[in-house]
Amino acid sequence: MRNILIVGAGKSTGVLINYLLKKAESENLFITIGDLIRENAEKVAGNHSHSKAIYLDIFKQEEREHAVKSADLVISMLPARFHIEVAKDCLRFGKNMVTASYISEEMAMLDEEVKEKGLVFMNEIGVDPGIDHMSAMHVIDRIRDNGGKLLLFESFTGGLVAPESDTNLWNYKFTWNPRNVVVAGQGGVAKFLQEGKFKYIPYNRLFRRTEFLEIPDYGKFEVYANRNSLKYKSIYQLEDVLTLYRGTIRRVGFSKAWNMFVQLGMTDDSYTMENSAEMSYRDFVNSFLPYSPTDSVELKFRHNLKIDQDDIMWEKLLELDLFNDHKKVELENATPAQILQKILMEKWTLAEDDKDMIVMYHKFGYEMNGERKQIDATMVNIGKNQNETAMARTVGLPVGIAALKILNGTISTPGVQLPINKEVYGPILKELEENGIHFREEEKEYLGYNPFGVVGN
Amino acid sequence: MRNILIVGAGKSTGVLINYLLKKAESENLFITIGDLIRENAEKVAGNHSHSKAIYLDIFKQEEREHAVKSADLVISMLPARFHIEVAKDCLRFGKNMVTASYISEEMAMLDEEVKEKGLVFMNEIGVDPGIDHMSAMHVIDRIRDNGGKLLLFESFTGGLVAPESDTNLWNYKFTWNPRNVVVAGQGGVAKFLQEGKFKYIPYNRLFRRTEFLEIPDYGKFEVYANRNSLKYKSIYQLEDVLTLYRGTIRRVGFSKAWNMFVQLGMTDDSYTMENSAEMSYRDFVNSFLPYSPTDSVELKFRHNLKIDQDDIMWEKLLELDLFNDHKKVELENATPAQILQKILMEKWTLAEDDKDMIVMYHKFGYEMNGERKQIDATMVNIGKNQNETAMARTVGLPVGIAALKILNGTISTPGVQLPINKEVYGPILKELEENGIHFREEEKEYLGYNPFGVVGN
Repeated sequence: MRNILIVGAGKSTGVLINYLLKKAESENLFITIGDLIRENAEKVAGNHSHSKAIYLDIFKQEEREHAVKSADLVISMLPARFHIEVAKDCLRFGKNMVTASYISEEMAMLDEEVKEKGLVFMNEIGVDPGIDHMSAMHVIDRIRDNGGKLLLFESFTGGLVAPESDTNLWNYKFTWNPRNVVVAGQGGVAKFLQEGKFKYIPYNRLFRRTEFLEIPDYGKFEVYANRNSLKYKSIYQLEDVLTLYRGTIRRVGFSKAWNMFVQLGMTDDSYTMENSAEMSYRDFVNSFLPYSPTDSVELKFRHNLKIDQDDIMWEKLLELDLFNDHKKVELENATPAQILQKILMEKWTLAEDDKDMIVMYHKFGYEMNGERKQIDATMVNIGKNQNETAMARTVGLPVGIAALKILNGTISTPGVQLPINKEVYGPILKELEENGIHFREEEKEYLGYNPFGVVGN
Repeated sequence: MRNILIVGAGKSTGVLINYLLKKAESENLFITIGDLIRENAEKVAGNHSHSKAIYLDIFKQEEREHAVKSADLVISMLPARFHIEVAKDCLRFGKNMVTASYISEEMAMLDEEVKEKGLVFMNEIGVDPGIDHMSAMHVIDRIRDNGGKLLLFESFTGGLVAPESDTNLWNYKFTWNPRNVVVAGQGGVAKFLQEGKFKYIPYNRLFRRTEFLEIPDYGKFEVYANRNSLKYKSIYQLEDVLTLYRGTIRRVGFSKAWNMFVQLGMTDDSYTMENSAEMSYRDFVNSFLPYSPTDSVELKFRHNLKIDQDDIMWEKLLELDLFNDHKKVELENATPAQILQKILMEKWTLAEDDKDMIVMYHKFGYEMNGERKQIDATMVNIGKNQNETAMARTVGLPVGIAALKILNGTISTPGVQLPINKEVYGPILKELEENGIHFREEEKEYLGYNPFGVVGN
């Protein structure tokens, strides 16, 4: 029996465990799921002879060490900031490790020791980060192997509601952590590169500088820029690329409407509001508008943001019941972002039979034999049900596949790493495809942002 | 001889020393000026039998202690963050102290010990903070003493260029620290109270939510909200006030034009730009605009910010030479705010014979004998020359006056304090008036923001 310890029974853990348990017999696996709430662990462990649930508090050193010591490989599904304690134990006891989170500075600092011990610490192996890395490097490496030179790389991902469950005016529901959606884009300027020019978008313009995307069979989407696209220069070795741009996908019209909240300051998470618990939703909105003894909150809102009488954005606000004078916020010492999140969750939570959707879109512009070309690669994945959402599958599956391949020695290059090497992404992408997660590639005319080679701005 | 130690030869130190030296003979004073740059200290000390300049590094404990020990009173004109070291020595050696800065948390924590030793640590005794406190409390206390109840307090201050030197389209020049102007309003929402309603303005709306002010003989001004007006509730004991609003004064049109920089992200001080040194001014502007191979930076700017062909805001940009393709930024690893500051300093630096102006405007709304009334108090002070600017006078004089009154025991209530008590502000305001810094009061009809008592928003 080979023991896998999974720490944290999160939203993707169910899919991950189902994947591993299906292979448990043939691969001789035993899965231990540890969580601070034992019932959560039990729910995902199920009633299976190859799995068990345990209570595990990773801040209790002895418990944590014991659990890690008994495992052959450890998967941490905890929130990113908690990985490091588990990682240090894995290093000490010589265990391989898998996480779906961005490599933190602390994690990166373990690299040398991890290499010395010949261990594999695989990170960023969910969907974004994860499938984005693998599917991008798959095409980038192929272009390079064929003698091509990358000119443009753009990559966009979105967690959305599936078309069949898309029932509100925002064409959006929360499919993952609502808080991340409310504060998205804060805490740093968006930096990217277009035709060799560095571009910067501040938060207050971010949702008004979107671009459109079209995905065959799924229609039009829009994207807003992610925080720092420039770091992918070194990660993907795109030092000479002219355009480097990553973004988040939404349905058309979402960002322009969302921008109303940004402009008024409703997404601010840096201070708590006076008397937040007693405020009505209407009071909340009114706090961000000038005082007037005679004008309505509605008219002040329209006037301040210059919203025409017949603008559909207005209906989007009404749909959220934002001007309701009877609904109370009922959150003590809440920030604007926390209050907005509560209001949105009442309307944007997935219903029992709603399905989610993951959309990914890469553009690769390159030069080969003197010719400029472009490949677009798109992936759409629709959730099966509330347990097997597209988000849970696209995070849980690559984590499970990577874990098993590390255990079996197919992935063996040691170090703290992310899945950008052929040895890693090749077999994982193949197995993802067998599980219905695949990219559709299309050759296009390369236009870039400057098709006629004008000296641009 | 009574020894006064002045630490830091800043912009207001000259006025401060002249004030003290004029009294040196009659008051039996000897002034020691210590600075990290000895020449700076020598320049302000002059060639006077009652003063001397010394080299002083406040981070060298022995030097600092020696200087403090030899003094009867210490005035720290250092940047605010450096006061605490000096303050601790003053406490240890039993010396009174004066600063023009906001009371920091560290400084506030000394209060108990300062009281135990019977010392006076007077802070916030420049112009803003300083004269604003004193002139406001002067009227507030009078209204209260006469049985009035405060309903409204609004207070606005601006450091501007004098009308006779107002020669650019922005009606603005730097009269103090340019950096503070460039980053003004960042780092926290503007909070205030209007007719009992809490209001919040985020940074990206701050310069579009201005209000107008009129000052007899000086015309129209505008104000934008300061960060946290609410803290004056407790400082001035205005717990029951309906309107509490503090702001910064500019000439009409400044804020709307400044908002262009805010919207594009040019005032951001949180990240450094790529290749900042080699950028032209035009490149700098273009970094914040979408890429286009064909459209000019000018048209992209106009289109992005929706600036009409005949909008005077455009001329304000041209006046700054913002679109110049030849002028280089020449600052390594600079933030947008640092680059913008450099561009502005080329145009907004006071010329040799330019004069500055300090403008202060308070509104006090109150109820007395069932009647609602209002007093407006305004102060305008115009600089004499580059050494005796209005800013230097309105900071240096109250500091000097307070120091002498503490030395003479006129101000004696011990503790870490700001000048809000009658014992303090009374004699200081009187002497300021003798020095040409005085307020003009006017009784007005009280309107507030809701003159007809409608249930407002």
